[in-house]
Amino acid sequence: MPTDSAPYHPPADPDRFAAIDRPTLVVDRSRAERNIARMAAKAAASGVRFRPHFKTHNNAEVGEWFRTAGVTAITVASVKHAVSFADAGWDDITIAFPMVTRALPTIASLAARVRLGVLLDSAETVAALAGVDSPVDVWLDVDAGYGRSGIRWDDTARLAEVGSAVTVLARHRLRGVLTHAGQTYHVPDHAAIAATWRETATRLAAAREVLAGATGIAGLDISVGDTPGCSIVPRHDGVDEVRPGNFVFFDCQQLALAACDEADLALAVACPIVAVYPDRGEVLVHGGSVQLSRDSAPWSRGEHYGRLATVEPDGWHPIAVEDGHVRSMSQEHGILRCSPEVLAQLHVGDLAFIIPAHACLPANQIPDWAVI
Amino acid sequence: MPTDSAPYHPPADPDRFAAIDRPTLVVDRSRAERNIARMAAKAAASGVRFRPHFKTHNNAEVGEWFRTAGVTAITVASVKHAVSFADAGWDDITIAFPMVTRALPTIASLAARVRLGVLLDSAETVAALAGVDSPVDVWLDVDAGYGRSGIRWDDTARLAEVGSAVTVLARHRLRGVLTHAGQTYHVPDHAAIAATWRETATRLAAAREVLAGATGIAGLDISVGDTPGCSIVPRHDGVDEVRPGNFVFFDCQQLALAACDEADLALAVACPIVAVYPDRGEVLVHGGSVQLSRDSAPWSRGEHYGRLATVEPDGWHPIAVEDGHVRSMSQEHGILRCSPEVLAQLHVGDLAFIIPAHACLPANQIPDWAVI
Repeated sequence: MPTDSAPYHPPADPDRFAAIDRPTLVVDRSRAERNIARMAAKAAASGVRFRPHFKTHNNAEVGEWFRTAGVTAITVASVKHAVSFADAGWDDITIAFPMVTRALPTIASLAARVRLGVLLDSAETVAALAGVDSPVDVWLDVDAGYGRSGIRWDDTARLAEVGSAVTVLARHRLRGVLTHAGQTYHVPDHAAIAATWRETATRLAAAREVLAGATGIAGLDISVGDTPGCSIVPRHDGVDEVRPGNFVFFDCQQLALAACDEADLALAVACPIVAVYPDRGEVLVHGGSVQLSRDSAPWSRGEHYGRLATVEPDGWHPIAVEDGHVRSMSQEHGILRCSPEVLAQLHVGDLAFIIPAHACLPANQIPDWAVI
Repeated sequence: MPTDSAPYHPPADPDRFAAIDRPTLVVDRSRAERNIARMAAKAAASGVRFRPHFKTHNNAEVGEWFRTAGVTAITVASVKHAVSFADAGWDDITIAFPMVTRALPTIASLAARVRLGVLLDSAETVAALAGVDSPVDVWLDVDAGYGRSGIRWDDTARLAEVGSAVTVLARHRLRGVLTHAGQTYHVPDHAAIAATWRETATRLAAAREVLAGATGIAGLDISVGDTPGCSIVPRHDGVDEVRPGNFVFFDCQQLALAACDEADLALAVACPIVAVYPDRGEVLVHGGSVQLSRDSAPWSRGEHYGRLATVEPDGWHPIAVEDGHVRSMSQEHGILRCSPEVLAQLHVGDLAFIIPAHACLPANQIPDWAVI
């Protein structure tokens, strides 16, 4: 469980980070590998397929850590990322984003070289698939309550219509129902997250039954994503495949949901300190919205965009929110609000290690990485 | 003045954009060139130096449009960008971000090959400059009321201390006082923006006088940035240099401030439509926070992250906010809320042209560009 209690002191070995001269993603490899192994073991113990979402790290080197953990099938967020991971040697890829019909030529060429899964929720999109010669796995995007994309789980007419349209395409195979239960990010505690998990599985099972009835296809699968749900439930019961992504690094959002412990936080953004303002109780760092993103953490104590961490021999730990957090940003500027005790230990030329509110955007937006 | 009145209809010539299959920045070159020429002419008529901020476009090709308009000196936001524009042939560059002392080796090598301006607000940072052999122009970062960075304009002791420290460095030259009057983004109307301009100039003049008194240096300059101020005041009076950046493209923020007209909006993000949900009154596009950023426009009618535009033969025009705007996003998903009339004209496979709330982030985050 998170504790928020680490006191701040400067890194004992600052030379370790001497090469960092601009906002840089620092990844703690041993923590990330432990996060991967833990999720892989839970999926295996639950008898479900583990198809991690690579949208968070979106990085070929980190991808290899998954491969070492036995992962052979992955999820990506876009056609572009599918191409880059196919180029990196992955040959079983689901694009868990409603199929972009304008990208059909690229999708068709991907389907010719890897086992490709696509997601869709309309007959128009099914019709476009007729232009893909190589077989693809087709997943129906089901909205199990999040309200972002997909066919509502209880819209039996539309489920039957779109599912039946897929079966008309002889080359392609209807694989099942897929959702991202993003509502787990907005419920208050473990019990509510676990309840959302069960409800999602139940709703997808109902959708699958409608689909099986309409198409006559047995053995359709249920695929779910979301790090809070997959992390918090003790077993991945009631589904066939899990696709969490953020868990490789975790972040302040996940910590606030108690979906991870502080010792699981595998990503920090190291930002050079460029000014210290004791009278304002603030420190200015190089690291703004173009690096950290404006994804915030309103459910933690006080809205912020990230928490200052202290770097210990066993890794970094966020200090209490009131002692150090990112209060505001502009494009390249980040303003940390700090307690007087912490501020007295920060100097121009030091690095501030920041645990971002949401790791996915910094990991995608910062080109400079360091793995420790 | 903005009108908000354009009705939506699909592009008359969709084939023009046939190659776009993922979120893509589309830049209207003739509008951007007109924006550049207008600002350059105003600066020239006011007798001030025009040193545009390249942080918005951050693109060598767009940089050439500035060169054609007679621009020879530029502003950038980071050491990294200074290097990339030096590589693109620019030889007079001010880095308008407090000097990152950790990047001193790169700064020193830049100073050896271009005329380099640096910004600072502390004696610690001045001390670091002793490690730079080639001469640099030193600007004092003055906080004229925005509260982000710099020495407060009325902190005479600190102005004198830091200014005097610069004069001890025989190699480097104190050039003047510099600010970003970002408070112009938060005032209600033209009169308030013009008043902020005058107040900023007055405060910087006071800071310059303190500095001149402390150092004995005559001819120190005043440099200001900010697109709202530089766009709205009829003349750039009371300063020596202007550094606006966003004006090359403008965006919904600037339109809401009436710092531009609709016909000046030179950047749109073209997003493939992947689903249409008439019952929700929403359309799903490929284009989320990693592309559009979560910078929003709370001062316009209803919070949003961008406005849907109609593409006409003379360029794009945003439709009324209530008829089409980006309501929410996740990493790659954008959800447009649309009126029934507009929604009926949007189909899976079409492109939605979105004028972002704030152009700077999308321009920096989206790698795919198309210039029309």
